[in-house]
Amino acid sequence: MEEKKKTTRPRLPKLGEKLGEKAPKAKAPKAPKQGSKQNQSGKQNEGGVKYARRQTGFRAPRQNKENGNGPAVPLHIIPLGGLGEVGKNITYYECQGDALLVDCGIVFPDSDMFGIDLVIPDFTYVEQNVQKIKGILITHGHEDHIGGLPYLLKRVNLPIYATKLTIGLIKNKLEEHNLLRQTKFVEITPRRSFKLGCFTVEPIHVNHSIPDAVAFAITSPAGIVIQTGDFKIDYTPLRADCTDLDTFAEYGKKGVLALLSDSTNAERPGYTATEQKVAAGVRNLFHQAQDKRIIIATFASNIYRIQQIIDLAVENGRKVAVSGRSMIGNTEMAMELGYLHVPDGTMIDIDQINKYPPEKIVLITTGSQGETLSALARMASNSHRNVKVGHGDFIIISATPIPGNEKTVTKVVNGLLQLGADVIYENMYDVHVSGHACQEEQKMMLTLTRPQYFLPVHGEYKQLKRHADTAASLRIIPPKNIHIGEIGQDIILSRDCLKLGSPVQAGAVMVDGLGVGDVGNVVLRDRRHLSEDGLVIAVCTVDGSTNQVLAGPDLVSRGFVYVRENEELMNGARIAAQQALDHALARNAHADWASVKAAMRESLSSYIYRKTKRSPMILPIIMEV
Amino acid sequence: MEEKKKTTRPRLPKLGEKLGEKAPKAKAPKAPKQGSKQNQSGKQNEGGVKYARRQTGFRAPRQNKENGNGPAVPLHIIPLGGLGEVGKNITYYECQGDALLVDCGIVFPDSDMFGIDLVIPDFTYVEQNVQKIKGILITHGHEDHIGGLPYLLKRVNLPIYATKLTIGLIKNKLEEHNLLRQTKFVEITPRRSFKLGCFTVEPIHVNHSIPDAVAFAITSPAGIVIQTGDFKIDYTPLRADCTDLDTFAEYGKKGVLALLSDSTNAERPGYTATEQKVAAGVRNLFHQAQDKRIIIATFASNIYRIQQIIDLAVENGRKVAVSGRSMIGNTEMAMELGYLHVPDGTMIDIDQINKYPPEKIVLITTGSQGETLSALARMASNSHRNVKVGHGDFIIISATPIPGNEKTVTKVVNGLLQLGADVIYENMYDVHVSGHACQEEQKMMLTLTRPQYFLPVHGEYKQLKRHADTAASLRIIPPKNIHIGEIGQDIILSRDCLKLGSPVQAGAVMVDGLGVGDVGNVVLRDRRHLSEDGLVIAVCTVDGSTNQVLAGPDLVSRGFVYVRENEELMNGARIAAQQALDHALARNAHADWASVKAAMRESLSSYIYRKTKRSPMILPIIMEV
Repeated sequence: MEEKKKTTRPRLPKLGEKLGEKAPKAKAPKAPKQGSKQNQSGKQNEGGVKYARRQTGFRAPRQNKENGNGPAVPLHIIPLGGLGEVGKNITYYECQGDALLVDCGIVFPDSDMFGIDLVIPDFTYVEQNVQKIKGILITHGHEDHIGGLPYLLKRVNLPIYATKLTIGLIKNKLEEHNLLRQTKFVEITPRRSFKLGCFTVEPIHVNHSIPDAVAFAITSPAGIVIQTGDFKIDYTPLRADCTDLDTFAEYGKKGVLALLSDSTNAERPGYTATEQKVAAGVRNLFHQAQDKRIIIATFASNIYRIQQIIDLAVENGRKVAVSGRSMIGNTEMAMELGYLHVPDGTMIDIDQINKYPPEKIVLITTGSQGETLSALARMASNSHRNVKVGHGDFIIISATPIPGNEKTVTKVVNGLLQLGADVIYENMYDVHVSGHACQEEQKMMLTLTRPQYFLPVHGEYKQLKRHADTAASLRIIPPKNIHIGEIGQDIILSRDCLKLGSPVQAGAVMVDGLGVGDVGNVVLRDRRHLSEDGLVIAVCTVDGSTNQVLAGPDLVSRGFVYVRENEELMNGARIAAQQALDHALARNAHADWASVKAAMRESLSSYIYRKTKRSPMILPIIMEV
Repeated sequence: MEEKKKTTRPRLPKLGEKLGEKAPKAKAPKAPKQGSKQNQSGKQNEGGVKYARRQTGFRAPRQNKENGNGPAVPLHIIPLGGLGEVGKNITYYECQGDALLVDCGIVFPDSDMFGIDLVIPDFTYVEQNVQKIKGILITHGHEDHIGGLPYLLKRVNLPIYATKLTIGLIKNKLEEHNLLRQTKFVEITPRRSFKLGCFTVEPIHVNHSIPDAVAFAITSPAGIVIQTGDFKIDYTPLRADCTDLDTFAEYGKKGVLALLSDSTNAERPGYTATEQKVAAGVRNLFHQAQDKRIIIATFASNIYRIQQIIDLAVENGRKVAVSGRSMIGNTEMAMELGYLHVPDGTMIDIDQINKYPPEKIVLITTGSQGETLSALARMASNSHRNVKVGHGDFIIISATPIPGNEKTVTKVVNGLLQLGADVIYENMYDVHVSGHACQEEQKMMLTLTRPQYFLPVHGEYKQLKRHADTAASLRIIPPKNIHIGEIGQDIILSRDCLKLGSPVQAGAVMVDGLGVGDVGNVVLRDRRHLSEDGLVIAVCTVDGSTNQVLAGPDLVSRGFVYVRENEELMNGARIAAQQALDHALARNAHADWASVKAAMRESLSSYIYRKTKRSPMILPIIMEV
């Protein structure tokens, strides 16, 4: 009977109706048992719930009264990624034997992770507890929230709960990994609660730089936890509505045990500007471009921005082409799913752009971060197959360089300018706003939800710390209840206290080509060593019975010096190796190859360092016949 | 007789006296012939010079009338570095057979220049023309203006003209390279002209983030060129005076042939804030620090900033210690030369800091860019010998990350915060201002000097372009007279025209350890390849007469996979190499080793790519006995 009610939720106040004047809600949404294999008694106690009234003037967190009568129920929150780093967000929740995951992202490698394609979370703990996990909740479709899914789903089969566009993006990803057929998707919608084991989950609409982003209110027997995902508050977004402040406020009134909130912009005071500001900025630039061809680079996932560019193109009688694999894939999917509205006859193939005069074209492209192989980078280096950039081009980079990408973006801008194009980049005009909440928005989220405990998430330590400081400055949450977590920490929350259990295995697993986790610190150390001074191989053939050198030692080097111009150095090195070999063999009647090699390495290494102040990797090889 | 006059110059207007009301100057400063080996007739025509009067309302550049009567004399300006890049500034001037250099800097390597320590200009053209060059003028003592001197002076012996502090910094540098004894220094002073061949040079005081910085007014038979060096305009600097606007204005009135001006901040609108703003910001932070130990990181060359910190320490009754090799060296030298004023008993050795309570200590340190081995980085990783950072520390990073350093700075900030310290960084307070002119200051320089030609220097292409756009917006200089140069361009200026001669050899030479220029593109390409996927060596011994394989092929890999966990892969690869070898030897009766190796490489490479999607460097080695 109660299954029908799974999507009902307390009526939201209308505009102008004050939250404080409403009567307290009588009960939480009930959810069906589906998804929960067992309905163990004692797990659910939503019946009989009483919500705390708004206590004006009370500057301490409201007590969560969901389980106010029985003994305090513990909830385990274990961040497996996303803390102390920007990316690979994944959080494990467990209560009374039921578990769920929120997000499963990747992080792009640091510059010292030579040759690594991407970094995923260590899934060991997930695998160990897979039988408890009822599903994976996804907040939105960015790589740092969904990129790890193919690697996780190769190891465990779990259903994915996500909104429509997010599912579309995940499906594209899983298809590439041949994982689409085996994976179960459950499409979720804001304000429609669903049940996963002992958890009731309500997705809450939030603004972000991709459509269909949600936060989650996770009601557990221990209390309500709100995980914001990535969010900002835009009162005048281009599409959809403002972040659903009402629902956050509702939960705040009910009593929130813990808030896990986005720390990305914790260092920025004030508010993130509305996307309308970008719209106005780009509109001006369309006029400024006059009769030039417009090329505009942005993130392929920022469907709002792409929609806005298409709208302006239509308004200005320009055709639209898209360039870059992810841009083509995402726009196609967004059009199919109804997230991108394009009048017939607007889109043209990139092969067709040269058939139109420049003032009739807008080209939307990838490469706003200066990525080496992106469409825009190829245009800048004059190596794009279809697009030759020149004086007739007006190029807008509608993005800000992500820290670490400044130099690659600069290279692209230089290239485009040198080809004669007008280039609008960085802070020249309002062509980009962040997708993340700044300090005042973070304060709003904290104030609306008024959690008993606050755990800043999504950020380097410095961002988490600033977010914690911001929270402390509000004097809603006692400092002892603000916890800067670490990955692998077992954070045990109940209405009585926050304590830490034994840490679980968590960390980073490097992906290189098809290899997942086969590149570790030894391999990376070797790559770093090789990258710095190259290597010198000393190879010889020795008669194992007589210890007589039959051939060599010959030297082979790579990445060390240009050998043809350094014959003297290489000859000297060969002689050093020869002498060390002869000397070692003479002493080693029983041919202890390891010590012979060590002697050669030592001799070569010190000769080379003396002559060059360099330390290439030295690799002695002895072939015994 | 005229030698006495070398330092006289036209009287500067007093405060309140309007420039426009002054009578035109009658003559340029005469200079002695010293430094010019020959005084060829016709080279100097300062006698009979008539200066243009201020022509109010005239929005075109004043004609340079220095050589207005005879045929136009050409001046060659050849930038050998510093254009299209940030760093390694060096400019070659030549007129009527005499030449001089301005600055000789380095640039730090890009992240894709594996193992390279620093990059210097290609000095070929300097060496080819050394007999013409009368000396090297240095604007100020930053690495991007002096760092290349040791490498140049190893090849040619030229006198150096620089201000006192700059000479001190250069001497420290040359001492490390054992070049101090052979080098002649000439100390120069603002407003004292000197003669170098047919050139008369006047140093002009400018504000920058290091004391004793100057611009140069270079009077040649072709006309006057002003090269600003790095500058900003600070009306209220901490020490010394504001940039000598009067003298720039004087030259502007005389008529300037060309201006070469600093483009570093060409993308920033407005003005660079005064160093007083930092002083106020740091003063507040000293109060905020209360009874904590203050650790403050800044650039070792920013003597003004260091003075200000010392003053605040004295004011607050704190002792001062310094940490980091360059910080110790620079503060010692600046104290000796009288650029840093420290009351007796203020400085203590870093070994002593733990003998004082935290509120009595200020520690000034290097590492504001998060440099891996710097003092601050060692504090952040808890590996500094003398300094243990903790809750009692208040740390101020008084610098902004240089593009490319954001991640290393973040790492240091995270580390310090995690140790419990308060950390003030980036835009949290006014703890740093740039040393370079922003757009409004650039406009002022252009307006005061009103050059016939404008050459933006010191910057990436995008900065040069913005500076050129700023200049064009003033409508003082016709667009055809604004030239964005490239290194190696022979820019020939005269009162009649700007034209380009044949380009000269110019570029970047990489320094790696003791090697200068022995690492080229082939070596770098190999280092990059090795860094990405490591290498696999396949080595075997073959009987040259019978083509019989006596040993191997054995595989040795580094930086590829962790071999112990990938035995199957490595076995498969060995078999692939074996088969390719056997097959190739069977076909090659005459043992063409190159094609045998190619076959092994091909076979191994495709096997490995198929199995791993990686492309390590494959190195087949055949030992013939």
